Amino acid sequence: MAQLLLGKEVTASLNARIMNDIAELGKSGIMPKLAIVRVGENESDVAYERGAVKRCETLGVVYEKFLLGADCSTDDVLAIIEKINNDDKIHGCLLFRPLPKHLDAEKIENALRPEKDVDCMTERSIGSVFTGKNVGYPPCTPQACMEILKHYGYELKGKNVVVIGRSLVVGKPVAMMCMKENATITICHTKTVNMPEITKKADILIVAAGRPRIVGADYVSEGQTVIDVGINVDENGNMCGDVDFDAVSPKVSAITPVPGGVGGVTTSVLLSHVVDAAKRSL
Amino acid sequence: MAQLLLGKEVTASLNARIMNDIAELGKSGIMPKLAIVRVGENESDVAYERGAVKRCETLGVVYEKFLLGADCSTDDVLAIIEKINNDDKIHGCLLFRPLPKHLDAEKIENALRPEKDVDCMTERSIGSVFTGKNVGYPPCTPQACMEILKHYGYELKGKNVVVIGRSLVVGKPVAMMCMKENATITICHTKTVNMPEITKKADILIVAAGRPRIVGADYVSEGQTVIDVGINVDENGNMCGDVDFDAVSPKVSAITPVPGGVGGVTTSVLLSHVVDAAKRSL
Repeated sequence: MAQLLLGKEVTASLNARIMNDIAELGKSGIMPKLAIVRVGENESDVAYERGAVKRCETLGVVYEKFLLGADCSTDDVLAIIEKINNDDKIHGCLLFRPLPKHLDAEKIENALRPEKDVDCMTERSIGSVFTGKNVGYPPCTPQACMEILKHYGYELKGKNVVVIGRSLVVGKPVAMMCMKENATITICHTKTVNMPEITKKADILIVAAGRPRIVGADYVSEGQTVIDVGINVDENGNMCGDVDFDAVSPKVSAITPVPGGVGGVTTSVLLSHVVDAAKRSL
Repeated sequence: MAQLLLGKEVTASLNARIMNDIAELGKSGIMPKLAIVRVGENESDVAYERGAVKRCETLGVVYEKFLLGADCSTDDVLAIIEKINNDDKIHGCLLFRPLPKHLDAEKIENALRPEKDVDCMTERSIGSVFTGKNVGYPPCTPQACMEILKHYGYELKGKNVVVIGRSLVVGKPVAMMCMKENATITICHTKTVNMPEITKKADILIVAAGRPRIVGADYVSEGQTVIDVGINVDENGNMCGDVDFDAVSPKVSAITPVPGGVGGVTTSVLLSHVVDAAKRSL
């Protein structure tokens, strides 16, 4: 049976650091504050928001919600972003995406000041994950993967990391972040031929395919570490990852469970960005 | 013996398209114009400039040189960029890089308007190769690799492309461009372990390591296509690629020679961007 890479252990260590930083900031009279902007009532947005708010309250990060109706205009959202840009008390902004289709998402996302872009929504922030220039903050989910690997003592230098998925939210940036740590990276996707042949050669397999349990026993080999970024609901209404945990976990060395893996770490990464932004504002 | 993928054949086909476009633009009274900005007298800059100027003259692209002394200030260069930004007759700008160290390269490079960024020097242009947003133009050398593959009829979908080199000028963008064409990509670099084992599995191997003849016979296998981006001068003063041509060419299916491969295509790609920028200005 594989070692379980548990999100809660990583979160505990991140949270301790965050609370320590908040205490330090308090000495300078600064309270880290997150702005949460939500348009409409999308179910998964509301669920993520609930988790983020709870985590804010636990750790002592101040938050302010800006809620807009699903039929608001681009200018309505831009006005909120502008308010957040100009409010020195707000250090970071979480805007739920994708936005409703009638809104000019590109304009809205790029309106935020990079130093408040704790969720990596501006073109500059995400582009800099590629260029290595570190504008703003890296996206939270890929960084959560990195935090898990770091927490459990993985050294990526010279390792073969295979990523399944090429989204701009997870697949592409996590590959770049692993390469920055000197891993050799391969990105597989829906058009990849003979995927198991490629994934079986990985030292570390990061799965961000967005489809329930597509990675079975035939995709993995002994000694591997598997990071499952997927969050899906199966036909019985149970939460599951992109990896078939029951089939894969007996075979590999280490694996993140779903739930209990990457998901929970993401929120702490977000709040660590808010605290970091507050520190930089000093 | 491998098929030779010849730059001159690709260039001929690109040039025909460019000249056709120039003739079309002429009907609207527009002459595509390139601004060439050079700081100092770096030997390789001067050599590339000579080639670019010659190609401009052959094809009928107007050019204007802006030459600055090696000891000029950041403001001096910014003034030139501003002039280029505001000159409707200039459609593209080639600025030789790296700039002398005393200059604020980031400020200068990002001052250019994206629509004139034919050599992909702004953060937005290069970042958009990663995000897929296509701001400005992709970098010329990686696109030259793509043009060669396209010219010789390669279909990248589902192919395994291995890139050696992770520079922002070639390695990273060419990998992204191949993935956009639905290839499965792997990026190797100096920290990669057992590189030959990885490169031998490639359908297409793109070498941008920047070191003379580091890819020998042990890196390749039958049936492969090799694109050699390297331009080096060996110990006898001869130009050579990053691939040991004599050792590799008998083994693989197709290969670009050096000289005679990627290098010459790059200049035509640059001018195709200038012509395209002129078309967009209509």
